[in-house]
Amino acid sequence: MIDISHILEFLPCPTPEVWVEEARKPENLSLILIDHANNELKAAQSAIAIMSRYRTGQFASARDKNEGGIRRQLKPQDQFSLLNKMSRLAREELRHYEQVLAIMARRNITYTHLGAGRYAGQLSSVIRTFEPEKLIDTLIMGAFIEARSCERFAALSPCLDDELKKFYLSLLKSESRHFQDYLTLAEAINGGPVDDRVMLFAGIEQDTIESPDPNFRFHSGIPA
Amino acid sequence: MIDISHILEFLPCPTPEVWVEEARKPENLSLILIDHANNELKAAQSAIAIMSRYRTGQFASARDKNEGGIRRQLKPQDQFSLLNKMSRLAREELRHYEQVLAIMARRNITYTHLGAGRYAGQLSSVIRTFEPEKLIDTLIMGAFIEARSCERFAALSPCLDDELKKFYLSLLKSESRHFQDYLTLAEAINGGPVDDRVMLFAGIEQDTIESPDPNFRFHSGIPA
Repeated sequence: MIDISHILEFLPCPTPEVWVEEARKPENLSLILIDHANNELKAAQSAIAIMSRYRTGQFASARDKNEGGIRRQLKPQDQFSLLNKMSRLAREELRHYEQVLAIMARRNITYTHLGAGRYAGQLSSVIRTFEPEKLIDTLIMGAFIEARSCERFAALSPCLDDELKKFYLSLLKSESRHFQDYLTLAEAINGGPVDDRVMLFAGIEQDTIESPDPNFRFHSGIPA
Repeated sequence: MIDISHILEFLPCPTPEVWVEEARKPENLSLILIDHANNELKAAQSAIAIMSRYRTGQFASARDKNEGGIRRQLKPQDQFSLLNKMSRLAREELRHYEQVLAIMARRNITYTHLGAGRYAGQLSSVIRTFEPEKLIDTLIMGAFIEARSCERFAALSPCLDDELKKFYLSLLKSESRHFQDYLTLAEAINGGPVDDRVMLFAGIEQDTIESPDPNFRFHSGIPA
């Protein structure tokens, strides 16, 4: 069993039991798998968007900070680390995507349209609009998404059939590594701890997870 | 040595010798590597954009074709094959991206801004705006980009130092597989040969490769 105690410590709250009860209903399995596939794809897409936006290490919209001048670009080692880690992360997400796709195909689950839940939108609403803060916040948001995914895979796995249980437990390790990558990059680029921002995101995350949510999804709140 | 004769048969013309002469100049090596990195990233991004747009297999803008009604969606096996192959392709492009990045880092090459060349823009100008033709054309364009990349890696490799020569030759195999994947998907989704569209794209490709081009890039024309 993978130790995810650092994930549970990072997250502001555990998944509510009522979410797990909803998720384990057989009629929701297709929805869970389609949303999972969409999330893996979106995670890869977001990592590549970061790579594309920051590939030269230069900030397009650096703010003039009174307290110490403008940071116009990433340190070379942070730039390399960002691009390299995001690329590896995107590759792993795509591999998981292929695995979900194969499971769906074997079970004759039709990949129907499923709109995004509110989770990512709520977290991204507090991302600052100037650099390097925008990048730092984007990375912290990535850490929360990975941490919550990891925690939900663990919470859901006891309720699943053997194939899915094995698959979801196999994802814990990489999701937990992705969480750490995002957080480490945010700290490196900030040049120190990002605790105040993590606390801000944690408050929003907890509210999103613990308040009634009309759309049941992998990252949704209390089933309404 | 990898056999790329099918690539050379597919492409309308070989790379002009003057392009190779320009590319082998030591002062252009950084530009070639940066453009190569950008291209790998863009290739992964384009594959993921296709996956995202067509994930449910439904066409948002299917045309009413008089001769046989509207094709509103992909066959399930084509949908699965499209998503699965594009995901694997994106993963390979990202791995190549990481390899170029590592080479640039070892050589202290700064990843500066480099605007895109005209190549992809010229090819995409003939992509039809209705489905499934838009998807078919997008895939054919992908086949040309992969085929030309493969041919240029082969043309350039004799002029490069040992590390780069070995690296570029190692890419031939996957680029040649990607070319085939794109073409096979286009034919499957069209339900038959796509020769007429390939001929149209070939004409534009040849013109782009053989006419004077103000911006020297990995896929550029005659250095102006």
